[in-house]
Amino acid sequence: MIAYLTRRYRFSASHRLHNVALSASANARLYGKCDSPYGHGHNYALEVTVVGPIDPATGMVYDLVVLDGAVKREVLEPFDTTYLNLDVVAFRGKVPTTENVCIEIFNRLQAKIGNETSRAHLARVRLEETSSNFFEYDGSGPTVGRRRVRR
Amino acid sequence: MIAYLTRRYRFSASHRLHNVALSASANARLYGKCDSPYGHGHNYALEVTVVGPIDPATGMVYDLVVLDGAVKREVLEPFDTTYLNLDVVAFRGKVPTTENVCIEIFNRLQAKIGNETSRAHLARVRLEETSSNFFEYDGSGPTVGRRRVRR
Amino acid sequence: MIAYLTRRYRFSASHRLHNVALSASANARLYGKCDSPYGHGHNYALEVTVVGPIDPATGMVYDLVVLDGAVKREVLEPFDTTYLNLDVVAFRGKVPTTENVCIEIFNRLQAKIGNETSRAHLARVRLEETSSNFFEYDGSGPTVGRRRVRR
Amino acid sequence: MIAYLTRRYRFSASHRLHNVALSASANARLYGKCDSPYGHGHNYALEVTVVGPIDPATGMVYDLVVLDGAVKREVLEPFDTTYLNLDVVAFRGKVPTTENVCIEIFNRLQAKIGNETSRAHLARVRLEETSSNFFEYDGSGPTVGRRRVRR
Amino acid sequence: MIAYLTRRYRFSASHRLHNVALSASANARLYGKCDSPYGHGHNYALEVTVVGPIDPATGMVYDLVVLDGAVKREVLEPFDTTYLNLDVVAFRGKVPTTENVCIEIFNRLQAKIGNETSRAHLARVRLEETSSNFFEYDGSGPTVGRRRVRR
Amino acid sequence: MIAYLTRRYRFSASHRLHNVALSASANARLYGKCDSPYGHGHNYALEVTVVGPIDPATGMVYDLVVLDGAVKREVLEPFDTTYLNLDVVAFRGKVPTTENVCIEIFNRLQAKIGNETSRAHLARVRLEETSSNFFEYDGSGPTVGRRRVRR
Repeated sequence: MIAYLTRRYRFSASHRLHNVALSASANARLYGKCDSPYGHGHNYALEVTVVGPIDPATGMVYDLVVLDGAVKREVLEPFDTTYLNLDVVAFRGKVPTTENVCIEIFNRLQAKIGNETSRAHLARVRLEETSSNFFEYDGSGPTVGRRRVRR
Repeated sequence: MIAYLTRRYRFSASHRLHNVALSASANARLYGKCDSPYGHGHNYALEVTVVGPIDPATGMVYDLVVLDGAVKREVLEPFDTTYLNLDVVAFRGKVPTTENVCIEIFNRLQAKIGNETSRAHLARVRLEETSSNFFEYDGSGPTVGRRRVRR
Repeated sequence: MIAYLTRRYRFSASHRLHNVALSASANARLYGKCDSPYGHGHNYALEVTVVGPIDPATGMVYDLVVLDGAVKREVLEPFDTTYLNLDVVAFRGKVPTTENVCIEIFNRLQAKIGNETSRAHLARVRLEETSSNFFEYDGSGPTVGRRRVRR
Repeated sequence: MIAYLTRRYRFSASHRLHNVALSASANARLYGKCDSPYGHGHNYALEVTVVGPIDPATGMVYDLVVLDGAVKREVLEPFDTTYLNLDVVAFRGKVPTTENVCIEIFNRLQAKIGNETSRAHLARVRLEETSSNFFEYDGSGPTVGRRRVRR
Repeated sequence: MIAYLTRRYRFSASHRLHNVALSASANARLYGKCDSPYGHGHNYALEVTVVGPIDPATGMVYDLVVLDGAVKREVLEPFDTTYLNLDVVAFRGKVPTTENVCIEIFNRLQAKIGNETSRAHLARVRLEETSSNFFEYDGSGPTVGRRRVRR
Repeated sequence: MIAYLTRRYRFSASHRLHNVALSASANARLYGKCDSPYGHGHNYALEVTVVGPIDPATGMVYDLVVLDGAVKREVLEPFDTTYLNLDVVAFRGKVPTTENVCIEIFNRLQAKIGNETSRAHLARVRLEETSSNFFEYDGSGPTVGRRRVRR
């Protein structure tokens, strides 16, 4: 029996939406107030979903202690209480929109969850930026195209 | 990389669940207290999900200002602070169950999100009626049948 | 030892903010969209707070079954799934602003909570109209004046 | 038109994570504090999702009264205010991890939702153990394998 | 300038409401399903409020690291993942109603918050048992009487 | 009849907790990770409470349009999407702890709410920094002392 386990984490960080390859007016048009020069911040709510068979001996999909350790090392310690644009190397050349932060988190966690003997693996990352919006990424590439409408 | 963007909105409206084609007793049996003659209301929480590739230049799936404008024009202005049965033409001949309101919102938004040059499109609408229930619609027709169990 | 017990309830209703003693333009100016002619609705969240000594034998401030019964009879049954302006007699001559609904609920409950042998009594009613606002009433009259700033 | 209806329920129960087939130290390693000898508890939040075509006559996917009745009989009455390990027969020989409770609930509800004449059926059960984690099960078996990453 | 700082914590525990000094039928009448013989559980949400002047040098009412340490030692470690009736000595002779747990927490924390040089002190403890009810205690004794209606 | 009206607002900002009058090691000891050099951010949730008599003609304590306008001008426009330390003049010489931000908001709003003819006035400001803590200020000075334990 295959089940999904989702674990919630929180971190607080700031970011500025600004693409140095674009003009000041293009940045203002694209990002509006989020281009504010010294940045601004959010309490990010992160949901990490792992999918896999339920181990009949333990009754569990995945060891939460292992999952918490991976998320702490790969995401919470490097991201929490930082200014993402300057404190996280990955965002020095990439605009830290929540879409991009979401993908960065997925990529950091994917290799750390599951292993040769485990059949569980990372299914999805969801990142809430404010109570008005959130973003989800499940590792899909662009060739999936239109068929991805359905979930 | 394909990501999902979900944006939350709120509106307050009232409705009466009553089908004029049915008898009073059939309406009472079907809708119970929700057939109350002068209607009753809810704070509806709407989630609109857009799916598409992340634009490498902007780091974004879709422009939130464009999305907010479409939702404001197509849903919030016509639905907020109304009695759906009488104030919204679409519900004069159709019972405004939350299922039907959800589909009406999907249909209104689908044509307004994405365009010839954008690869993003509306993935799903979710409408919460109370803290005890919500409804989702993703444009699927009835031919999908049993296979839709899995998401 | 004196403790506060707060219990949460929910009901869904609709209302129209409109004072028949005022002109159409005065109503529009005062109530804006909330004067919409057929009304609109909310999921109201009600918190009822009872204060009293903890009974050493039971370890309780007040019997929740008794409290739930009083709230059901006095508030939920008459208010849930109604159009307050027409379905609740008290609001036929009084605009059902959330302030007024809050006071009506307090007055209905005050006499039903506590009795000659119980030292517990109704401390406060809080009514949330939307996730953006709520109202509180604790039975105070206008003579309290400025000193009520502090809580 | 196919829509999803999700209904939320709550129950409070306690459990102990302990597998009698394993040694004390193996249990401690696997379950940590959750192996505490007298158990501990949670407020479980249950979401039951039903999928099906919207009935054109009623505007509804499924009758909420019927759904509430099934959940009450099959889940809330037997599980609420219990110690799952001893009070629910199904968990006398199976560790009541939230994964296993989730599957038990799905299996109890699946046969009770939909019937020969209804095209609606149970799509998914989601069980929240704490505000930090939740589990989902949709009836899938292990042969689905890797392809289940996508939702 | 005097400000209030409130910090939220969570713990999961189980309890049985049963007074050994009373008959089985009296317990059943008083506590209903909460008298279930093996107990049941909750995710308790605890809010600890400290009041005091804002230190002009630090801009803070109280050091959160100190507060978190006190709550961890006095409440979270002894209460989390336990069966309160048997695992916490204080409840071996006292029914662990949420009222009594709330007072026990207040008394444990009061002596640990503030000191000879600090003017901050514990103002209030609020303990949420389920999403439907919570309890508050601020150290008041019974002599306060009727005047406590107002807050 | 005197009632309390509370209105909720949200803004996103970043801050750095750092007192230039103190040494680097003193700042690190006092503020820990919150002294991170480029700052970090939060989604602040603001609750503004107004108290006053209910106007018998309107059924309202205070005009929400007027309140929203004051909060927008005095708080949301100057604070939202900013780095408080640099973008808000008041915090150039004062550490923007949430305590200090809370007081700044109270002082900005107090003069704008109520007037010579209105008997309503600002009762309290509550500012939530994360889902784990919030701060409240009601204009009280330090002379109130110990008696402020009770609310």
